[in-house]
Amino acid sequence: MKFVVVAVVLGACAPVQTAPVPAASSQSAGGSAQAAGVLAAPGYKPEFGTMWTFEAPPLDYWKTTYNFSPDKRWLDHVRFASVRLPNCSASFVSANGLVMTNHHCARACIEESSSSDSNYIQTGFAAASLRDEKKCAGLYVDQLISIEAVTDRVRAAITASGAGERAAQRSESIAAIQRECAAATSNTCQVVSLYQGGIYSLYRYKRYNDMRLVMAPEGQIAFFGGDPDNFTFPRFDLDLTLLRVYQNDVPFKPADFLKWSARGPIENEAVFVVGNPSSTGRLNTVAQMEFLRDVQYPATLSAYQRQLAIYEQLGASDTSARRRYQNDVFGVANSQKAVTGYRTGLVDSARSARKLAFENEFRARINANPALRTQYAGTWDAIASAQRGLASFNRQLRYTGFAGGSQLLTVAAQIVRVASESAKPSADRLAPYRGPGLETIREAITRDRPIDIAYERLALAAQLRAAQSELAAGDPFLVAALAGRTPEAAAEALVSGTTLVNTAARRALVQGGATAVLSSTDPLIVLARAIDPLNRTVVARADSINAIIATNAEKIGQALFAAYGTSLPPDATFTLRISDGLVKGYAYNGTVAPYKTTFFGLYARSSEFDNKDPFHLPPRWIARRDRLDMATGFNFVSTNDIIGGNSGSPVINRNAEVVGLAFDSNIEGVPNRFLFDATTGRTVSVHSAGMIESLRKMYDGGRIADELQGISRQAAPAVR
Amino acid sequence: MKFVVVAVVLGACAPVQTAPVPAASSQSAGGSAQAAGVLAAPGYKPEFGTMWTFEAPPLDYWKTTYNFSPDKRWLDHVRFASVRLPNCSASFVSANGLVMTNHHCARACIEESSSSDSNYIQTGFAAASLRDEKKCAGLYVDQLISIEAVTDRVRAAITASGAGERAAQRSESIAAIQRECAAATSNTCQVVSLYQGGIYSLYRYKRYNDMRLVMAPEGQIAFFGGDPDNFTFPRFDLDLTLLRVYQNDVPFKPADFLKWSARGPIENEAVFVVGNPSSTGRLNTVAQMEFLRDVQYPATLSAYQRQLAIYEQLGASDTSARRRYQNDVFGVANSQKAVTGYRTGLVDSARSARKLAFENEFRARINANPALRTQYAGTWDAIASAQRGLASFNRQLRYTGFAGGSQLLTVAAQIVRVASESAKPSADRLAPYRGPGLETIREAITRDRPIDIAYERLALAAQLRAAQSELAAGDPFLVAALAGRTPEAAAEALVSGTTLVNTAARRALVQGGATAVLSSTDPLIVLARAIDPLNRTVVARADSINAIIATNAEKIGQALFAAYGTSLPPDATFTLRISDGLVKGYAYNGTVAPYKTTFFGLYARSSEFDNKDPFHLPPRWIARRDRLDMATGFNFVSTNDIIGGNSGSPVINRNAEVVGLAFDSNIEGVPNRFLFDATTGRTVSVHSAGMIESLRKMYDGGRIADELQGISRQAAPAVR
Repeated sequence: MKFVVVAVVLGACAPVQTAPVPAASSQSAGGSAQAAGVLAAPGYKPEFGTMWTFEAPPLDYWKTTYNFSPDKRWLDHVRFASVRLPNCSASFVSANGLVMTNHHCARACIEESSSSDSNYIQTGFAAASLRDEKKCAGLYVDQLISIEAVTDRVRAAITASGAGERAAQRSESIAAIQRECAAATSNTCQVVSLYQGGIYSLYRYKRYNDMRLVMAPEGQIAFFGGDPDNFTFPRFDLDLTLLRVYQNDVPFKPADFLKWSARGPIENEAVFVVGNPSSTGRLNTVAQMEFLRDVQYPATLSAYQRQLAIYEQLGASDTSARRRYQNDVFGVANSQKAVTGYRTGLVDSARSARKLAFENEFRARINANPALRTQYAGTWDAIASAQRGLASFNRQLRYTGFAGGSQLLTVAAQIVRVASESAKPSADRLAPYRGPGLETIREAITRDRPIDIAYERLALAAQLRAAQSELAAGDPFLVAALAGRTPEAAAEALVSGTTLVNTAARRALVQGGATAVLSSTDPLIVLARAIDPLNRTVVARADSINAIIATNAEKIGQALFAAYGTSLPPDATFTLRISDGLVKGYAYNGTVAPYKTTFFGLYARSSEFDNKDPFHLPPRWIARRDRLDMATGFNFVSTNDIIGGNSGSPVINRNAEVVGLAFDSNIEGVPNRFLFDATTGRTVSVHSAGMIESLRKMYDGGRIADELQGISRQAAPAVR
Repeated sequence: MKFVVVAVVLGACAPVQTAPVPAASSQSAGGSAQAAGVLAAPGYKPEFGTMWTFEAPPLDYWKTTYNFSPDKRWLDHVRFASVRLPNCSASFVSANGLVMTNHHCARACIEESSSSDSNYIQTGFAAASLRDEKKCAGLYVDQLISIEAVTDRVRAAITASGAGERAAQRSESIAAIQRECAAATSNTCQVVSLYQGGIYSLYRYKRYNDMRLVMAPEGQIAFFGGDPDNFTFPRFDLDLTLLRVYQNDVPFKPADFLKWSARGPIENEAVFVVGNPSSTGRLNTVAQMEFLRDVQYPATLSAYQRQLAIYEQLGASDTSARRRYQNDVFGVANSQKAVTGYRTGLVDSARSARKLAFENEFRARINANPALRTQYAGTWDAIASAQRGLASFNRQLRYTGFAGGSQLLTVAAQIVRVASESAKPSADRLAPYRGPGLETIREAITRDRPIDIAYERLALAAQLRAAQSELAAGDPFLVAALAGRTPEAAAEALVSGTTLVNTAARRALVQGGATAVLSSTDPLIVLARAIDPLNRTVVARADSINAIIATNAEKIGQALFAAYGTSLPPDATFTLRISDGLVKGYAYNGTVAPYKTTFFGLYARSSEFDNKDPFHLPPRWIARRDRLDMATGFNFVSTNDIIGGNSGSPVINRNAEVVGLAFDSNIEGVPNRFLFDATTGRTVSVHSAGMIESLRKMYDGGRIADELQGISRQAAPAVR
C-alpha cells in the first residue's frame, strides 16, 4: 500500500528514511572500476564523514592523522569479530562466543525469553551459568566473511537503452550473482551498491542462528533518562545486552573476537567504531537538500505538531489519559527532536556553504574531463528540476491519501485495496500487496484490536483541517472528504457513522470481497473508495518523478566515484564500516562537556529529578549503590561517525580492544546525517569499565565479567 | 584618564557597563508624580522583568500570578532583613546577626582575615566559636531603613533652560537633600533616580561596619567549575560566606532577620530574590540596542578574539606559558561569554520583535496624549541620530587612543597626562586625575611591577594591525603610530626602544614633570605625546554626543513613567529590589535541565574530568565525602530576574524563609540584560539544604548551622 506516510523515527535502530530515497540499495546501476584498499589522504573531505568500507580502508589518512597503520591481519581480525543483527550491529567479545550489542537492539529477545512469571525488561537478567542462558527464537547474526568486486559483471549485463529495461537487467544480474553465491557456499550473499551505483560488491556472510540471552539489564537503566535524554550527552545508560552464539548446543568458539581493554577509553586517544550504519544523505545534491529543508521536513514537523496537539487536548482535562498517551507523546517528541536536528544541519548557513562549495568543486572536476562531462551532463539539473516538480504538488501528495494517524481510515483503505488488488496477478499489485503481503494485510484488518475513538475523532479532524488550510478549495480530495462539512463535522460523522470499529464488520467486508466493498454504505468505506483513485494518481505522478531522481542520483554516485575514487567514503548502506575518531569532550551549554560520565552522574541525574520517571532507578541500583566504585566511567563520547544501524557497534582502540559500546549520537551529532561535522557532534557509548562494574556489582555477573576480561578461574572454561 | 577602553567583565559582582551609559545614577533629571505601593497587573510587560522596588511592590500582579498578598509587615520585615555590601547583596539570617552572602562578594575579607600561616581562600574557614570570628577591616553593610519621595523637590529646583545649567541645578538639589538627610539622621543617604529620572527617591541606610568572618568555604568549592561553568547550570558551587555584624564587640541582634526554611525550595513554588541589581538596559531604545548589537559589541568581541589569539600564540610552543596565561584566558573567555550572551539577546529576532512592538506601543501612548506628545517630541529620533553619529566615527574612537592591553603604552599615556593635568586646577582635569585620583595614578606609574615583554610586543602589534585594517590610510593615529612601518616592526621598535620597563626611568619622568616629558626621546613617550591630543579630540566629540543621549534617555525614562507609572519596574540602580519567580527546570541540550542539583552531581562533574582543575575538589571534600547525604540539594534554579549586584541575595519563599542564596545566572539568562525572558533564563542559587549539610558535615559548623536553623542547644545563646 503506497500511502503518503509521515515518517516516524523509532529510535537509533530505525532511522528515518529521508525521502526522496534514491532506489539505491542492492538494485541499482552504473559505476566504474573497483579500487583496492588504498587511498590518498589529501582527497579526504571531512564533511563526508568517516564511514569507511573494509574494501578501501583509508590507510594513508589514518597514518597521517593518527600515525596508525593497521595491517591486513588487524583489519581481518576486526572484521571477523564484527557481526550484524537484523536491525543493529554487534561483535564477538569472548573466546566462548559472547556477543555484545545494545539493549535496544535485543528487546524482542529479552521479552520473549522471559520466564513465565517475570519480564526481563522490567527485572533485568543475568544467567548464573551456561545452563541458564535463554534461547532467543529467530534471532541471528551475520559475519562478513568475504567481499568481492562485481561491478564489471553487473555493468556488462546492462545492455538495453530504456531506463526500465536497464533497471530490470541490473536487478536480474544482481539476483543471479546472489543466487550463484548462495548455491555455491550456503552463505548469505548480498550485492551491495556503494556510491549509489558507483561500484557493486558481493558481500558473503556466515549466519549464526542459535543465539541465547546471557545478560540484559533492566530497561530502565538501559534507557535511563528515556526519550528526553535520547540523542543527548552527558548520558547515563547501560544500553547493553550480552548474547552467546551456540553451535550444536555448545558455546561457539570464534576464531576472532575482540579482547577487553584493561584501561578503557583514554581522553584524546584514537578509537574506531565498527558496525553497520544504515542510511546517510551526504551524497544528496544541494537541490535534494533544499527540498528536504524547505518542503519535506517542514511538513513532517507540522504533522508532529498536530499529533502533539491532539495528545495535549486528550490529556488536558484527564490525568489518566495524560499518563496513557505519555509514551506516544515522548515518541513523537523524539522524532521531532531527530527531524529538527536533521533540518538544523540543512538550515545552518556554514554547513550549507560547505556543501555548496563541495558541489561546485565536484562539478568542476567532472567538467574538467571531457568524457565525464559528456557522461554526466544535465545530471544535477535533472534532479533539481525533478525536485521542483515534486515540490509543485507536494501538498496534494501529502493530503490526498490516508495519512494523519487515523487507524479507521487506514483500515478502510486497506479493505478497499484488498478487494481490488487481490483480483490482480501478484506482480501487478501495489507493492505491499504482492506475494505474502496480501495475506499479512488481510490478517491485520481482521485482527481484534482496540480503537481509540477519542483519538480518531481528533486525528481525522486535524488532518482535514490541515488539508483544508493547505489545499485549494474545490480540490477533489477536500470535496470527497468534507462534502461541504467543517473538518470537525466530517470527522464526527465518519467516526460515529462507521461500523469498522467492530472486528466482525471488518471481517465481513474482507470476506465479502469487491461486491461487499463496492456496495458498502459505511461512510469510511465510501470515503476510502473515493480517495483511492485520487491517491493512486498522485502517487503515480510522484513515483515517476522519484524514478528520475533515482536514476540521476545513481549517476551522481558514479560521478563521485569517478572523480574521487574511494578517497571519500560512500553513503551508509547497512553494511560493515569502520569509523575513526577521538575520545573527546566538547563545548556545550556555555561550558565544556566532559569526555565521559561516571556512576556519580547517574545518581546525580536521578536525584536531581527526585527519582521521578524517566529518571528513576531500578530497585537493585538503589539497594546496591554502595557496592559501586562511583567514579567508574559509565558513558563516554568520541568523534566517530555513526547513525542508526550502528547501534551495538563495538568501540575499539588501536589494539583492537573493546573500550566501549556505541548506542547513540548527541543532539549536536543529529545534523551529521547530511554533512558530517565533528566540532560538537559525538558518538555516545557505554564505557567498558562501567559495563564490567555493573556486571560484577549489580548483576552478580562475575562469571560473565571474567569471561569478557579473559580471567580464568578454577572451574571456569578455558579462555584463551 | 579617558581612554577608549575595552570593557572587561569581572564576574557576577562587576557587570559590564553597557555603553553608552546614560548618566542616570543619582545625578539626573525629570519626572512626574510619585506612586504609592499599588500597581495594575494588566500593565505588566514580561520583557521588563521583575526587579520591583519596595516603593511600588506589584501587589495585584502577585495576587493574580501567585495568589500571594504580602502585607506591609511582610514587606518591611524582608526589607529590614536585607542588607547591601559595597559590591553585592546580603541578608540577616540569624537572631545574632549572621549575614549571608556569596563567597565571591567577600573575597577581600576572606583573604585579609586569613591568619599569617594560612590562606582561607585555599583552606576555607569556619570559626569554632564567637571568639574565633575574624574582623573584616573596612567592610560594612547598609540596611535600607526608609524611602522618601523627593521628585517634586528635585524638579522644583530646576529652573534654568540650558542643559548644562539644568544638570548643575539637579546635582545641587540632590546633594542638598543628601546633606540634610545625613546631618539630621547620621544615616547614609542617597537620592536614587528611577526610570532614568522619571522619579527621585531618598533612600536612607543604616550602616553596620563591624563585620566579622564566621565561615567561608575553600575558593575551589565556592567557584567549582571555574570560568568554564560560570554563567551556566547545572551547577555545583558552594558560593557562600557567612559574616556577623557586631556592635560594641558583641553580636548585633537584628529586629528583622530571615528564618531558615525547613523544606528548602520546592519545584514550581513561588520564590523571591531580594537584593540590589546593579545595571540593566531594558529602557534602551531600539536605536541604542542596534548600536550595541551592530557596532559596540562586535568591536568588543573582536578585541577579545585578538587577546585570546595572543595568549594562544604565547602558549603555542611553551606549556609553562600556557599555564601562566590560563587564568587570563579564562577571564577573557568569560567576558566573551557574557558579551556574546548580551548580543545573542539583541540578535534574536523574536526578542527584537518584542522590543520593537513595545517601543511602538509606548510611542503610540505618548502620541495619544497631546501634552506628552509635545513634551517628548523628537526624543527617540534624537537618540537614533546621536547613535548614528557615534557609529560614524566609532573606529577612530576605538583606535585613536591607548587601548589594546599594552601596559607600556598605558603607562606612557599616564606619564604624559600626569605632566599636563597636574598643572591644572582639579576641576579642569580629565576626570581620573581630579582630587586624589592624580596621586593614585602617580603612585601606580612609579610602583615596581613586572612587565611581560613578550605579551607587550604581540599586544601592540595586534592593536596596530587591527587599527591599520579598520582606519583609513593616512589617519593621523596610524601615521603617528606606524610612521611608515608595519605594525609588527612598529611594535618591535617601541618595545625594544623604551626604557619604561624600568621603574627608575618611569619615576624620573614623573619627577621631572612637563619638562622631562616634553624632552623625552623614549619612543613610547614620543608616541603618547602624539596620540594625546588626537585622543582628547575624538573623546570630546564622543562625550558631547553621549551627553545628548543621556539627556534624551532621561526623557525616555520620564515618558515611560508618565505612560506606565510603576506598572513596569525601573532599570536596575544597585538599590533594593524584590523579584518574583518560580523554582523551575527548563529545556536545554535537547533534553530537560532539572530544577536542582545534588551533591552527587558535584562529585559527578569532578570525576568526569578526572578531578582536574577547575573541576578538582578541596581535600576535605574528598576525605569527608562519605559523611554527606549525597542526594541533598546543592544548587537550584528559578525564574527570578537578577543581574550583577544581586550576588548574595537571599532567595525566600512566601513565608519569608531562606530557601537559597542567589549567585549567578545560567547562560540562557545572560541576554536578559536587555529584554527579560523566563523561557529558559534562570537565576542560579545555592540550595538552603546544601548549605546546612556542608556546614555540618564538611566544616564542623554545627554551631553555625544550629544558629541558622534556630536550633537551641544547652549552652547556646537564646535564639528567638
